[in-house]
Amino acid sequence: MRFDRKIINARIATMAGGEKPYGEVEADAIGIVDEKIAWIGSSDDTAHEAISIDDVEGRWITPALVDCHTHLIFAGDRADEYERRLAGESYASIAKSGGGIRKTVEATRKASAAELAALALSRLDAFAAEGVGTIEIKSGYGLTIESELAMLKAARSLGLVSGMRISATLLAAHAVPVEYEGRSAAYIDEVCIPLINQVAEAGLADAVDAYCENIGFTPAETRRLFIAAKAAGLPVKLHADQLSDLGGAKLVADFDGLSADHIEYTGQNGIDAMAKSGSVAVILPGAYYAIGETQQPPIKALREAGIAMAVATDANPGSSPLVSILTAANMACTLFGMTVEEALAGITREAAQALGLADEIGTIELGKAADFAVWDVTRPAEIIQWIGRRPLHGRILAGEWA
Amino acid sequence: MRFDRKIINARIATMAGGEKPYGEVEADAIGIVDEKIAWIGSSDDTAHEAISIDDVEGRWITPALVDCHTHLIFAGDRADEYERRLAGESYASIAKSGGGIRKTVEATRKASAAELAALALSRLDAFAAEGVGTIEIKSGYGLTIESELAMLKAARSLGLVSGMRISATLLAAHAVPVEYEGRSAAYIDEVCIPLINQVAEAGLADAVDAYCENIGFTPAETRRLFIAAKAAGLPVKLHADQLSDLGGAKLVADFDGLSADHIEYTGQNGIDAMAKSGSVAVILPGAYYAIGETQQPPIKALREAGIAMAVATDANPGSSPLVSILTAANMACTLFGMTVEEALAGITREAAQALGLADEIGTIELGKAADFAVWDVTRPAEIIQWIGRRPLHGRILAGEWA
Repeated sequence: MRFDRKIINARIATMAGGEKPYGEVEADAIGIVDEKIAWIGSSDDTAHEAISIDDVEGRWITPALVDCHTHLIFAGDRADEYERRLAGESYASIAKSGGGIRKTVEATRKASAAELAALALSRLDAFAAEGVGTIEIKSGYGLTIESELAMLKAARSLGLVSGMRISATLLAAHAVPVEYEGRSAAYIDEVCIPLINQVAEAGLADAVDAYCENIGFTPAETRRLFIAAKAAGLPVKLHADQLSDLGGAKLVADFDGLSADHIEYTGQNGIDAMAKSGSVAVILPGAYYAIGETQQPPIKALREAGIAMAVATDANPGSSPLVSILTAANMACTLFGMTVEEALAGITREAAQALGLADEIGTIELGKAADFAVWDVTRPAEIIQWIGRRPLHGRILAGEWA
Repeated sequence: MRFDRKIINARIATMAGGEKPYGEVEADAIGIVDEKIAWIGSSDDTAHEAISIDDVEGRWITPALVDCHTHLIFAGDRADEYERRLAGESYASIAKSGGGIRKTVEATRKASAAELAALALSRLDAFAAEGVGTIEIKSGYGLTIESELAMLKAARSLGLVSGMRISATLLAAHAVPVEYEGRSAAYIDEVCIPLINQVAEAGLADAVDAYCENIGFTPAETRRLFIAAKAAGLPVKLHADQLSDLGGAKLVADFDGLSADHIEYTGQNGIDAMAKSGSVAVILPGAYYAIGETQQPPIKALREAGIAMAVATDANPGSSPLVSILTAANMACTLFGMTVEEALAGITREAAQALGLADEIGTIELGKAADFAVWDVTRPAEIIQWIGRRPLHGRILAGEWA
């Protein structure tokens, strides 16, 4: 076989299971053909030719990281509210003065798809510098048909220009916009469901999400959305049980959802349903940290139920101003007691599964995309141990150094 | 006046008090002569010539950031312990197997001053990327006369090669080394006090620190060290009341100490003494976060007593693996309820005071060093609001772009 690229002298954490932690293997070389992993073997094996040979000098290689839950496309900023909250003003008072998500919606509606893409592109730098190869981005700050489409077009365009794989999610049911206040059912009928059909037809989204919460949409409303999504052929996921247990995890599991996200308040009922459906638990410690939540997600029960746990940033300008996937993983360990290996799997293998991309990315296995992160560390735990360090040597995406 | 450099079209957060938040001033230009701030005025004022003129295009300028408490010089890593702790192993069991600080001491003793400097230099990158211009670095992983001196020489050499101002602190009384186990008084007599005299004479340290704790040195031992430091002409500071109230804050205040650091358990007695002495409270949320502490430092009481509060990373491979001063500031707000302005003052003005450098750095005022951080933000709160973002445009240190 002739490789497009051969990587030699690597320590490979495949994250694909096996006897050793982090799926470490004896093999220390990878052969790439057509942007995919074609061979995993020994640096000493010279049976194969390669156009390029990269000696990574004993560095660790993991799958490129995957952030499976972000709100990275938005206009405006909310630094003033951050300041006011810390000076003692209440959320309610800030919301009353036009703050909160409505402020972001107001700014986002005024922005074009090109402006939104440019703003988000600059935000991707921090993710690239930490080894991220795939990132999910949600709509949900437009809340009109036109503006939600602009967000999704911006997300698709980022996939073309950033070199990263972008998974786009329609989250029209993020909040009830001011013009529909008190009329959430009408918002769902007139905006959310038509959008589902439109984006499914245009191929603008890979999944449909909703914010099911006392301050968001009811389980009954969420169910109507999910029925429409399923009819349109789009998989679903859910902001579930973040602030209270409305049965969100069970609801999304009943629709064979990709993931239930947040789930601080999910009970055993929801966990049982997730175990049955194979939905991934997406752990979002950034929001827990930033809003001062004290109820932790049920890590131990999820672990015991054998549910895959992904970890993501939830990057957004309000409740999780976090653009560091490594800090998210550190928080999942430090705040929630996930093991280091679980956290690293949470930002690779399990995050890929949460995006429905488990066949393509998330582990180093034959046939998967040649998407890698190469690290200046002596062992994988170091990747997550330090906050702010960015120990990345470089990324290889689709077989090329990015 | 002829300036070496003139910075125009800036929004200046002087951090020097005044009517507006962040010490913002009307002036939008700074003139630099001989590495110092010689003039603060209007971009339209053309009365002064300048060799270089830098248009920062409306960006915010703050004093270069100051990290006043780090343990950045060490050899080896402790990622394995991090992994084991999160997998459920106890601190005690890890310490028993040769882990903890002793592992770092073992590796550090084997390293030369040059090797220690090279290791620390690579760690400084993360601080530089967030706008830090001055950083304090402690010894305390050598615990022999020779190895402590090697650490301090490494710190001094970093000041020569990194372009950053380094404040070096002798912390021989960090832990009792294995060869003095059960004989801490002898360790103080035979190692710590001789070191104080030696580094004072050689000019290798700017201050003396100790770890006063049930698992460290007693207040009586600390007092003996402080007497020796004072006699040698070195100011003191203290790791005080981190895990229990041993009266550490009062002790260091009684010696007119520069700062009392950690102080989670400091009571009113200590606060009163600090208010009297003018010692700075150094808030270290990274350690609080990483070790899962639940007792918060008494921010409200410190504020009411008018005590200056600095914020620092406490960067170290065990209890605070944090090399992000901006995350430290974010944690001080999010976890401890400091205001954004207090936190930004904590990593500029108050940190400078904690290092005894208030006359030279920490604010943008006439006569102070021309050490600035230039930011890509719309308001100062944004600098601290996002974790992982590094919104730095560039640093000017001693009047030059760094």
